[in-house]
Amino acid sequence: MRLTSDARRAQLLELGLSMFAKRSWDEVQIDDVAEAAGVSKGLLYHYFPTKRDFYVEVVREAARRLIETTETPDAMAPVERLATGLARYLGFVEQHAASYSTLLRGGIGSDADTAAIIEATRREFLARLARGIGLDEPAAPLRLTFRGWLGFVEATSLDWLDRRDLPREALLDLWSRALTALVPVAVSR
Amino acid sequence: MRLTSDARRAQLLELGLSMFAKRSWDEVQIDDVAEAAGVSKGLLYHYFPTKRDFYVEVVREAARRLIETTETPDAMAPVERLATGLARYLGFVEQHAASYSTLLRGGIGSDADTAAIIEATRREFLARLARGIGLDEPAAPLRLTFRGWLGFVEATSLDWLDRRDLPREALLDLWSRALTALVPVAVSR
Repeated sequence: MRLTSDARRAQLLELGLSMFAKRSWDEVQIDDVAEAAGVSKGLLYHYFPTKRDFYVEVVREAARRLIETTETPDAMAPVERLATGLARYLGFVEQHAASYSTLLRGGIGSDADTAAIIEATRREFLARLARGIGLDEPAAPLRLTFRGWLGFVEATSLDWLDRRDLPREALLDLWSRALTALVPVAVSR
Repeated sequence: MRLTSDARRAQLLELGLSMFAKRSWDEVQIDDVAEAAGVSKGLLYHYFPTKRDFYVEVVREAARRLIETTETPDAMAPVERLATGLARYLGFVEQHAASYSTLLRGGIGSDADTAAIIEATRREFLARLARGIGLDEPAAPLRLTFRGWLGFVEATSLDWLDRRDLPREALLDLWSRALTALVPVAVSR
């Protein structure tokens, strides 16, 4: 079946998401992507000139989905919004375990584009946290506390993906209780 | 002056530490290292066959120093040990700002050797935290809480290196108060 250009691009990204979910950057070969998509390497390169370009666009698409899937209605109660957002975040982490680990574990070289996508995603979460307590621009101690709590969530996600020695619900509970415990630290100074 | 093999290697690592402190992996050229050391590229490659090998050894040496410099005497009171260790950690972060940011910010490819060094360093800190409260092998909730708190310290370090909008002492205070707030979250379940 011939696909339109947009549909083909979307199909390739979809495939990239599922491949990078189970395998890390180093383990995915561009030949495998073309084969799995049933297209020639030439066509794949038409959409994504290099493996890096493909990867960056897959990461961008993953980030877009993470932001979308963790969105909750304004009308929901704050505690419930947080719990719902966190449960969906963990669902995403489980679904994209391999890329999540590779992206956040740090490595030898930096990559400006992926770093910018990761940072923009964190900023969206920081902005939601600030809005959640009715602030536009929190002062430095609170901003750092929110930032640190995101670090807490990311670090425990990586550990949990490796060991899985705590039930899902207990990890979610740890995350929301950590936030509740940390906010007073920032504001009570 | 002719140096012994060990002394030459140590001199090159020392130089690498100071170069990677101010510039990231991508910004350091192996030619600059040879020039700054006053040695031929051939000699540099004799000690470190590739730029990556050199970088990994510099990271290993940096990690060794971080672990050593944050060590505190057993006889010191626990609160003072924590405060001293954290102040030295922050001093190290400030001194090695560029590499610290590159290493921990995540990127496109993973590197097994640097990832292993980072993980071993975190495990040493986790072991110290556990010993600090008299435990050898904390249960999952406490281990994850310590792990998350390390994530908190790393994430706030990265933010603080970018913005520096909080006095040093206030950041140190935030770190120790965060730990004090988080431990009960893990144990009160």
